[in-house]
Amino acid sequence: MPSYIAPTKDMQFVLHEVLNAAETGIPGYDEMEADFTGAVLEEAGKLATEVLAPLNTVGDTEGCVLENGVVRTPSGFKEAFKQMQDGGWTALDCDPEFGGQGMPYLLNTAVGEIFVGANMAFNMYQGLTHGAYSAIHTHGTDDQKATYLPKLVTCEWTGTMNLTEPHCGTDLGLMRTKAEPQDDGSYQITGQKIFISAGEHDLADNIIHLVLAKIPGGPEGIKGVSLFIVPKFLVNDDGSLGARNGVTCGKIEEKMGIHGNSTCVMNYDGATGFLLGEAHKGMRAMFTMMNEARLGVGLQGYAQAEAAYQNAVIYANDRLQGRAVTGAENPDGPADPLIVHPDIRRSLMDQKSFVEGARAFTFWGAHLIDKSHRSDDKDAEGLVSLLTPVIKGFQTDKGFEMAVQAQQVYGGHGYIEEWGMSQFARDARIAMIYEGANGIQALDLVGRKLAQDGGKHVMAFFELVKTFIKDNGGDEAFDKAFLDPLKAASKDLQAAGMYFMQQGMKNPNNALAGSYDFMHLFGHVCLGLMWARMGLAAKTALDGGASDAEFYETKLATGRYYMARHLPATKMHLARIESGADTVMALDAANF
Amino acid sequence: MPSYIAPTKDMQFVLHEVLNAAETGIPGYDEMEADFTGAVLEEAGKLATEVLAPLNTVGDTEGCVLENGVVRTPSGFKEAFKQMQDGGWTALDCDPEFGGQGMPYLLNTAVGEIFVGANMAFNMYQGLTHGAYSAIHTHGTDDQKATYLPKLVTCEWTGTMNLTEPHCGTDLGLMRTKAEPQDDGSYQITGQKIFISAGEHDLADNIIHLVLAKIPGGPEGIKGVSLFIVPKFLVNDDGSLGARNGVTCGKIEEKMGIHGNSTCVMNYDGATGFLLGEAHKGMRAMFTMMNEARLGVGLQGYAQAEAAYQNAVIYANDRLQGRAVTGAENPDGPADPLIVHPDIRRSLMDQKSFVEGARAFTFWGAHLIDKSHRSDDKDAEGLVSLLTPVIKGFQTDKGFEMAVQAQQVYGGHGYIEEWGMSQFARDARIAMIYEGANGIQALDLVGRKLAQDGGKHVMAFFELVKTFIKDNGGDEAFDKAFLDPLKAASKDLQAAGMYFMQQGMKNPNNALAGSYDFMHLFGHVCLGLMWARMGLAAKTALDGGASDAEFYETKLATGRYYMARHLPATKMHLARIESGADTVMALDAANF
Repeated sequence: MPSYIAPTKDMQFVLHEVLNAAETGIPGYDEMEADFTGAVLEEAGKLATEVLAPLNTVGDTEGCVLENGVVRTPSGFKEAFKQMQDGGWTALDCDPEFGGQGMPYLLNTAVGEIFVGANMAFNMYQGLTHGAYSAIHTHGTDDQKATYLPKLVTCEWTGTMNLTEPHCGTDLGLMRTKAEPQDDGSYQITGQKIFISAGEHDLADNIIHLVLAKIPGGPEGIKGVSLFIVPKFLVNDDGSLGARNGVTCGKIEEKMGIHGNSTCVMNYDGATGFLLGEAHKGMRAMFTMMNEARLGVGLQGYAQAEAAYQNAVIYANDRLQGRAVTGAENPDGPADPLIVHPDIRRSLMDQKSFVEGARAFTFWGAHLIDKSHRSDDKDAEGLVSLLTPVIKGFQTDKGFEMAVQAQQVYGGHGYIEEWGMSQFARDARIAMIYEGANGIQALDLVGRKLAQDGGKHVMAFFELVKTFIKDNGGDEAFDKAFLDPLKAASKDLQAAGMYFMQQGMKNPNNALAGSYDFMHLFGHVCLGLMWARMGLAAKTALDGGASDAEFYETKLATGRYYMARHLPATKMHLARIESGADTVMALDAANF
Repeated sequence: MPSYIAPTKDMQFVLHEVLNAAETGIPGYDEMEADFTGAVLEEAGKLATEVLAPLNTVGDTEGCVLENGVVRTPSGFKEAFKQMQDGGWTALDCDPEFGGQGMPYLLNTAVGEIFVGANMAFNMYQGLTHGAYSAIHTHGTDDQKATYLPKLVTCEWTGTMNLTEPHCGTDLGLMRTKAEPQDDGSYQITGQKIFISAGEHDLADNIIHLVLAKIPGGPEGIKGVSLFIVPKFLVNDDGSLGARNGVTCGKIEEKMGIHGNSTCVMNYDGATGFLLGEAHKGMRAMFTMMNEARLGVGLQGYAQAEAAYQNAVIYANDRLQGRAVTGAENPDGPADPLIVHPDIRRSLMDQKSFVEGARAFTFWGAHLIDKSHRSDDKDAEGLVSLLTPVIKGFQTDKGFEMAVQAQQVYGGHGYIEEWGMSQFARDARIAMIYEGANGIQALDLVGRKLAQDGGKHVMAFFELVKTFIKDNGGDEAFDKAFLDPLKAASKDLQAAGMYFMQQGMKNPNNALAGSYDFMHLFGHVCLGLMWARMGLAAKTALDGGASDAEFYETKLATGRYYMARHLPATKMHLARIESGADTVMALDAANF
């Protein structure tokens, strides 16, 4: 069975030596001293290793079962969920006014990586609840907040997001679910929603569904969509649970992975719902939570890769097979461990350098979200808006790819469910799809975010890269290994942006046909920037005579690998982009 | 449920307009007239569409069940297997002396793509049997041939290959299974073999296991391995079935995919075995079948991608979601079909251009194998030896990647087992692992094949590319779209080879650390060459006033896409290769 150890040291390095969290002056960040965050991460790691990780295979094997309208979660999930609640983990970055601990989102993100790495399907119950919490916190009335938030903060009640219907996922304007206004100000919700994660389960007393639906007579299409709170059990004025609402789980989907999470078809039969935010502004309400939700999925991508990587390293050290070409390294044994072989190292270094880069990128994104929320920093908000589709799309593609590589290290054993490596790949696969399939992320990036506010944020990004290179150049070895490749990659990204500006004017397909490659190109530059920042931090520590030289040397070596072996992808993506839309759009639909 | 239609027209194009099969003068190829192969492929396609494809989901869902030592295959497999036998499909390229039809391996390969595309797990029962047939045909005594071949040709009996043991897969020198010589000239085989595809099942009266084992007292390691025939039921002198042999299935593995095939742990408890070929030359005997076996797995890679692609195209045409950015294309419907969107086309073109290129490459490989076997052409044998790890490694990596892309077209529905797209990805995944994991293919390519016969075959490959470009240049549009990119890619491959020669001398790790990228670089150049050849054939047909202009225009457009959008990968692989082994080997094992 696979194991999981929280990479707390690597996390601390990003928090304190790269982002210098405690010194940023963001309200609430003064608590983020290294001792404190270290203690929190260690504690989360304990829960992850001892409780959540052992349940990961259980969840995959048992799955969720629907019987008589009730969903049974896998053995042990209930007890583990209780431990998660008791430890206060569900309340970490929630508003103290409603029982939260008010910690930065950044810290919540780091803790989230640990829980997701240990058991992604399990952690979704809490993750969806946090989404519902955020939506009600931002758009709810005082009454709604008082009614729902305290219970969502503790996860005594959990939450869901209901967007997709059988005939529409991306194009929610086609939605058919109806919300009929009632005399008492409530609405009757009728329709079917599919792919509802944690739609029904046995972990909580109540489930608060957030449901997108159309109020009859409203505007056509996406502009006529409103957001509703539809509790499984209606809540009495005294806060106790009242009548069972008209919402039921019709089916649990059989999926490729995340079996431990119940993915439900939800049927709304005149269920009582309460408008959340303004009528017909449902999509806008969803969008305010989107950066966090998508960052959370981008995190799943690399967190699964981290978990898979950890196990691949163990196997590569244990499994004896073949001899090093440069001479036996385990001469007393029957063979050398796999890890002596250059191609196994190539694979492990691909994984390691991606995961550590993605972690830094994700933490930086969370840091920008805090900056925008806590310091009302519009530039930070604009920048993280731009980066969010990259974090989501690039990291989940690469995360899956790396989980597959980790599985590959096991040879035939990687294909056998017994060893657990297949689950990492199967679970990671969903992150490329939900919360906006990655093609949609690319479209969002190129079609909306690039030009947002007159292209201000992408210019700011390039400026940031340029300044970093300018400010930190001069050390020949560092320049050559880190800054020169970053500069070249950034130039490729700028060239791609320029191509879109010039050719997209002539025909928007020239931009859209390159959107996916642009997202990946951007992702490489971002991870290149993060590695340059991590490399600099490591160099600074070494120059300062840090006692743990091996740790920092390893960081530098891993960064050098990323720059030498991942970044060359930027030229390929640029070449694909610059080939334009002609070859992409050449065929009639009938000739595919 | 997914569907499958044999792409017979595309296959015929490769057979007759690219490879000009009937005119090659290879013994037996004179029968390969277009009418004949067309009829065979249509007939195979009928069986595939009507019988095998509908059983693909059944196989995945039901899997194989072991009860009291007997394995039950999924519903319908038995009847389908009977139809496969009755149609003579199992005997297609087998020796007429033993009941085969003596057709070229090339035709068998084309038919194989159809069956594998329709139902990969099902087709493995026959595929493994064909491997056992080949081994006995090549290395068996006259008695052994007479005893086993007629039954293997018809698949009344099936075959298996037993190599892997729990502690050794790649490194078979560590093998522990023992073969004790008996007075009657037979051997007693004792040991455990794992991952034995079709090791036990209910489709045939007898199962002929080919088992690698060590005769005590023989040479150490891989040089002391011998190959044995171990029938499930011993065969009496009159050909009837005798005593049950001491070989049993201990367990069926739970796998990520190919559930329809029984992957068995096989226990040999003093089972009676008969030496096949020479003692201690078991690996050599295995190697003689390796090109075919590996080509067969490379075929699985793109055949699964083809099946997944076909369904992605159907979905992209059916599913209405969003509007084309250049204006509504289905103005009377609620939305446009997915296929109007550039990023969906980018994905479909990636798939289509890969699959068609891979088909041509695989058929060319099969053609070279026929040439080497039927015309005793040593150059063809050397060339296909060189190309085999590329066909296997590159095509299964890409095949999986493309199946994942096809799955992605379905959005959330791609993750739900009901739609069948997950199965294509899960089934395709194994092809990257078995028959030598792809890292081993890369090692075989760079460590053995490149330098084989003094590098003669790789030089011949480059010469072939050069000659093709020289002979067919002069048409500006064709040069620009096809020959120039091929030339550039081939130059990258040569530069990589040069790097290995120069730097690999200093340190072999410089070559091995780049082996995986080299395999992919090589794959791109091969598919580039195939597309140039297909492009030329299409151009020739159009210049000759072919009636089906749309078919040939589509070929040219698809080829242009491959050259513009796939081939830029060669520069990335070269850059990774030229970064050498330093960053790959930098870390101590403890620092991963």
